[in-house]
Amino acid sequence: MTQKYHAINFMDKFSKFNETWTPKILGRFDDYYLKAAKMAGEFVWHSHKDADELFIVVSGTLKIMFRDGDVMLSAGDCFIVPRGIEHKPVADGNVCCLLIEKAGTLNTGDQGGDKTVSDEEWL
Amino acid sequence: MTQKYHAINFMDKFSKFNETWTPKILGRFDDYYLKAAKMAGEFVWHSHKDADELFIVVSGTLKIMFRDGDVMLSAGDCFIVPRGIEHKPVADGNVCCLLIEKAGTLNTGDQGGDKTVSDEEWL
Repeated sequence: MTQKYHAINFMDKFSKFNETWTPKILGRFDDYYLKAAKMAGEFVWHSHKDADELFIVVSGTLKIMFRDGDVMLSAGDCFIVPRGIEHKPVADGNVCCLLIEKAGTLNTGDQGGDKTVSDEEWL
Repeated sequence: MTQKYHAINFMDKFSKFNETWTPKILGRFDDYYLKAAKMAGEFVWHSHKDADELFIVVSGTLKIMFRDGDVMLSAGDCFIVPRGIEHKPVADGNVCCLLIEKAGTLNTGDQGGDKTVSDEEWL
């Protein structure tokens, strides 16, 4: 019998791409996407006006900077960036991270610029 | 300076409770909850009429049965149960799992019964 239901193994998914700051869509539930992102170095300051954003760090160490503090995240750490709050992710080395956010949320939020990925790919 | 932003470490959260089939709320983003659930043995057949449900298995082996097949999930596997589809989770031994679903989604869906947790706790 053909297998109808399939697991999404995120370690397998992370092995399939190397681009950083270019989230890949792994699945959709309701109007939300589960994404896999690789990160290295600094991203840009940005905020998402209408969307909270859930980070789940799988490997590496990620600092998320805010204008009034920051948080350090390692494997097994989750963090929810509240909507409208300026933040800047900074990866110490290479980071693999799951992201969960509303479909249509841009990686650079309202900031734009050359790191914006407006057509995120399914993986 | 007092730390304003705090990571949610899910391994730490799993160490704080032992009840099975009683998801604990770890965080909220938009109208969705990030939950930690421990599972052992069989749950009940049920479906969630208006909500897809994202499972992320952290440890152990979880089978999700459907009326027309099933899927086996181990650590690092994700799976989205589509809304309206009858399913029955069966944990082989002890399973730790993250669940992400719309706030107000009942663990037993439309099935009810003595495993229903109508007032899930924050952890």
